[in-house]
Amino acid sequence: MQTLIESRRFERFITILIIINAITLGLETSDWAMARFGLVLLVIDRLVLTVFVLEVLARMLVYRGRFFHDPWRVFDFLVVGIALIPTTSNLSVLRALRILRVLRIVSVVPSLRRVVGGLVAALPGMGSIVLLLALVFYVSSVIATNLFGASFPDWFGTLGESAYTLFQVMTLESWSMGIVRPVMEVYPWSWLFFIPFIVTTSFAVLNLFIGIIVSAMQEEHESTASEERSQMKDEQDLILQEVRALRAEIQALYGGAATPPARPS
Amino acid sequence: MQTLIESRRFERFITILIIINAITLGLETSDWAMARFGLVLLVIDRLVLTVFVLEVLARMLVYRGRFFHDPWRVFDFLVVGIALIPTTSNLSVLRALRILRVLRIVSVVPSLRRVVGGLVAALPGMGSIVLLLALVFYVSSVIATNLFGASFPDWFGTLGESAYTLFQVMTLESWSMGIVRPVMEVYPWSWLFFIPFIVTTSFAVLNLFIGIIVSAMQEEHESTASEERSQMKDEQDLILQEVRALRAEIQALYGGAATPPARPS
Amino acid sequence: MQTLIESRRFERFITILIIINAITLGLETSDWAMARFGLVLLVIDRLVLTVFVLEVLARMLVYRGRFFHDPWRVFDFLVVGIALIPTTSNLSVLRALRILRVLRIVSVVPSLRRVVGGLVAALPGMGSIVLLLALVFYVSSVIATNLFGASFPDWFGTLGESAYTLFQVMTLESWSMGIVRPVMEVYPWSWLFFIPFIVTTSFAVLNLFIGIIVSAMQEEHESTASEERSQMKDEQDLILQEVRALRAEIQALYGGAATPPARPS
Amino acid sequence: MQTLIESRRFERFITILIIINAITLGLETSDWAMARFGLVLLVIDRLVLTVFVLEVLARMLVYRGRFFHDPWRVFDFLVVGIALIPTTSNLSVLRALRILRVLRIVSVVPSLRRVVGGLVAALPGMGSIVLLLALVFYVSSVIATNLFGASFPDWFGTLGESAYTLFQVMTLESWSMGIVRPVMEVYPWSWLFFIPFIVTTSFAVLNLFIGIIVSAMQEEHESTASEERSQMKDEQDLILQEVRALRAEIQALYGGAATPPARPS
Repeated sequence: MQTLIESRRFERFITILIIINAITLGLETSDWAMARFGLVLLVIDRLVLTVFVLEVLARMLVYRGRFFHDPWRVFDFLVVGIALIPTTSNLSVLRALRILRVLRIVSVVPSLRRVVGGLVAALPGMGSIVLLLALVFYVSSVIATNLFGASFPDWFGTLGESAYTLFQVMTLESWSMGIVRPVMEVYPWSWLFFIPFIVTTSFAVLNLFIGIIVSAMQEEHESTASEERSQMKDEQDLILQEVRALRAEIQALYGGAATPPARPS
Repeated sequence: MQTLIESRRFERFITILIIINAITLGLETSDWAMARFGLVLLVIDRLVLTVFVLEVLARMLVYRGRFFHDPWRVFDFLVVGIALIPTTSNLSVLRALRILRVLRIVSVVPSLRRVVGGLVAALPGMGSIVLLLALVFYVSSVIATNLFGASFPDWFGTLGESAYTLFQVMTLESWSMGIVRPVMEVYPWSWLFFIPFIVTTSFAVLNLFIGIIVSAMQEEHESTASEERSQMKDEQDLILQEVRALRAEIQALYGGAATPPARPS
Repeated sequence: MQTLIESRRFERFITILIIINAITLGLETSDWAMARFGLVLLVIDRLVLTVFVLEVLARMLVYRGRFFHDPWRVFDFLVVGIALIPTTSNLSVLRALRILRVLRIVSVVPSLRRVVGGLVAALPGMGSIVLLLALVFYVSSVIATNLFGASFPDWFGTLGESAYTLFQVMTLESWSMGIVRPVMEVYPWSWLFFIPFIVTTSFAVLNLFIGIIVSAMQEEHESTASEERSQMKDEQDLILQEVRALRAEIQALYGGAATPPARPS
Repeated sequence: MQTLIESRRFERFITILIIINAITLGLETSDWAMARFGLVLLVIDRLVLTVFVLEVLARMLVYRGRFFHDPWRVFDFLVVGIALIPTTSNLSVLRALRILRVLRIVSVVPSLRRVVGGLVAALPGMGSIVLLLALVFYVSSVIATNLFGASFPDWFGTLGESAYTLFQVMTLESWSMGIVRPVMEVYPWSWLFFIPFIVTTSFAVLNLFIGIIVSAMQEEHESTASEERSQMKDEQDLILQEVRALRAEIQALYGGAATPPARPS
C-alpha cells in the first residue's frame, strides 16, 4: 500500500481530485449552478471527500506513529477532518471551511510546497520584532481604551475594539478622516497619541520587512559567494602546496642541515 | 524592402508618426479640439493608421513565417489590428483602444524596450508565489461568498464580487470603515477572517517583492563581482604557473632524479 | 544588595511582576472585570508599583551617580515615576500612562532589548533626511496655510493644522476624495501644490527606507564577508611567508652576496 | 569681496538669517501674532530680503559669467527673485512662495546639500521607467476619458481630470469605494480596465524603487568591497613579485642558459 500511496500516479490522481473539488465548491456558491446541477455537485463533493478520508486513513495505517511527524500530513488531516465534524450548529461556517481542502494542493505540488516552506522559514527570524509590535499594540490599546473609550465606545470601548481600531490606523485606512479627526474634536491633543503610534508601528513593520529582505539576501549571497570563494581557496591551497613542496625539495637537496651547506667553489 | 524597413531613418519616421498619432488621439478626447479641427484629426489618424497597416504588411512579406517569432512584432500586429475590426457594436470601447497603438513606441525606442524586457523577465520567477496568491484568493472568495454573501450581496454575492472586494481589502482601500466594520455589525467574528487574510496576503505580496529585489540584486552583484573575481583568479593562476615553472626548472637543474642530487662539495 | 539586584532570579521575579501588572491593567479597562474584582486589581497594581519603586530606589542606592548613565535605567525611572505624580488635574491621562510600565519588559528581556537597540541605532543615520523632510513639511505647511487657510480653516487654518493635514496627505489617507478634490473646487490649480508634495515626500520617505536597508545590509555583509576575507588573507600571508622564507634560504645558500655567487663548475 | 562671501562667518550669518526668516514667515501665518507684532515681522522680513538680494548681487559681481554654473546659486537666485516680482495680480500665491526662501538652508548646510545631491543623483537612472510610467498614464487617461468621460465628467471629463483620477487610483486612495464601484454600476466591466492598471502601475513603481535600492546598494558595495579587494590584489602582486624575483635569482645563479647548467659533481 505504501508504494501505491507514494507513487507519482496516485499523487497526480489526488491533484486532479483537488482541482475538481475546487471547481465544484466554487460552483456551489452560484445559485444558478446549484439550481441546475446542485445534486451532481454535492455527489462529486461527497465522492471526493470519501477518497480523501480513505487516503488519510491509508496514510495513517502506513505511517502509524510517524504520521504526525510530517507537518504537511497533519495539515491534510485537519483540512479533511473539518468536513467530518457533524454540522448541527454553525452550519454555514463549517460548510464554508470545506474549501480549505483545496489548500491541500500546496502539500501535493512541490513548487508551492517550497514557496510556503520558504515563507514559514522566514517566520522565526521575525519573532522578537513581532513580540515587540504585539507589546506596542497591547500598551497602546490599553491607553486608547482608557483615554477615548468613554467618548467613542464603538472604536475604543473595549481592549479588543481598541486593538482592532489601532490595527486599522496602522494600515493607514481612514486613520485621519475616519478616526483621528473625529477623536480630535473631543480630545484636541489626541494626535500626540496617534501620530507617534503610526510612526512607531510603521517603523517597526518596516524593520520587520528589512529583516526578512536582509536575511533572504544574505542566504542568496552566501550560497553563490561561498562557492566561488571555495574555488579561490582551493587554488590558494594548491599554490601553498606547490611552494611548500618546492621548499622541501630544496631543503632535501642541501640536506636541510642546520648549518648552511657549503657553497660551490 | 528589408533594408528600408530595418533602416534607422524608417524607424525614426515611424517614431514620429506614433508621437503625432498620440497627440491627435489625445486631442480627440477634447470637445473643444474636435469642434475646431475634428476633420483634420480624423484624417491624420486615418493616414497614420494606413502607414502602420502597410508597415505591418511589409514586415509580414519580408519576414513571412518568422514574423510571429518576435514578440514585439506580434504586439505591433495586435495593436494595429484592433483598429481594423469593424466597429458595429461596442463602438466606444474599440475606439478607445486605438490609443494602445501609442504603446508601439515601446517596441521602437530601445531604452523602453529594455525596461519592459526587464519587467517581463522578472515575471517567471514570480510564478509560484503568484499561483499561491491566486489560490489564497480563490479559497478566501469561496469562504467569503458562503459566509457573507447572503447579508452583503453587493460585496460578496458571487465569487467574482467576493474576489473583487477581497482585492480591495488586500490593497487596504477602505477595508475597515468601508467593508469590515459593516460586516462585523452582522457577523461580529468576521475579523477572524479578514485580519488573517490581510496579514497573509500582505506577507505574500511582500515576499513577491523581496523575491524580485533579491534576484535583481543577485544579477547585479554577479555581473560586477564575477568580473573582479576572474581578475583575481587570473593572477592566482599566474602565481601558480610561476611557482610550478620554478619548481620544474629546479628539478631540471638537478636532473629531477629520484635520489637527491649530490651536494656541491 | 547589588548581587541581589543583578541576580537572574530577581530579574525573573520582576519579569513576572510586569506580566501580572500588564494583565491587571488590561483587566482594569473592562467594566465587567472592574465590577467583579475591581478592588483586587487595584491592590495588585499598588503592590506591584511599590515593588517597582523599591527596586528603582535600590538601584539608585547601588549605582548612585552611574544610575543615569544606562539609558534603560533612565527609562525604568521615568516609567515608574509617572505613577507617583499626584493625579489632581488630568487624572485620566496619567492613569492611562501607567500601562507604559509594561514597556519595562523591553529593558528586562534581552532579545527585545537587542531589537529596540537595533531600531534606535538606525536613527542617527536618518538624521539628515529627517531634517530635510521636516524642512519640506514646514515650508509646505506655511504655503498651505497662506493659500488655503482662508477657505478651509479646519484643514489649513493654522500652521499646526496644515502640518497635520499634510501628514495625512503624505500617508495617502483620503488625500484626494477627502482633501484635494474639495480644495480643487475652490482653487482649481491646487493639485500643482499637492501632487509634487506627495511625490517629493514619498520619494524622501522611500530614500529614508533605502538608507536603512542599505546600511543594515552593509553591516550584515561586512560581518560575514570580512571573516571569510580574513581567512583568505591569512592564507595569502602564509604563501607570502613561505615564498620569502624560500628566497631567504636560497640566498643564504649562496651567501646572498652582492655579486652573483660562482656557478658550480 | 570674494573672501568675505566665501568665509565661514558669512555663511553662518546667512544661515541665522534664514532661520530667523523661517520663524517670522511662520509667525505671519498666525492672526494672533500678526495682530501683535505684525509690523515687526514685516520689517524683519524686508530686512532679511534686502540682505539676501545684496548677497546674490555680490555673488553675481564676484562670479559673473560663472554665477549660473553652480545649480545651488541658480536655486538661490530664483528663490530670492520670487520676492521681487511686483505683486499686482495673484498676490496671495506669490506671498505664499516667499517661504521657499527657507529652502536656501539646503544650499548652505553641507549635510542637507549632500542628501539632496544624492536624491537628485538617483533621478537619471529612473529616466526610462518614469518615461514608461508616463506613457502608461497617457494611454490610460485617453482610454478612461473615451470610455467613462460621458458618464463621469467630474472624474474622467478631460484628459487632465482622467490623469488626476488615475493618479489617485495608483496611490490606492479610495480607488474602489470612491471611484471604481460607482463606475462599475454604469460600466460593469470597467474593473477589466482598473485592476490591470493598478497592478501594472504598482509593479512599475515597485521596479522604480528596486532600481534605486539596487543601484544604491551596488555603490555602497563597490566602495567597501573594492577597497578590500585592492588590498588582496596588492598582496597577490607581492607574492607574484617575490616568486618572480626568486625565479630570476635562480636563473641568474645558473646562468639562465638555454641548456641546463652542469650539475655540481
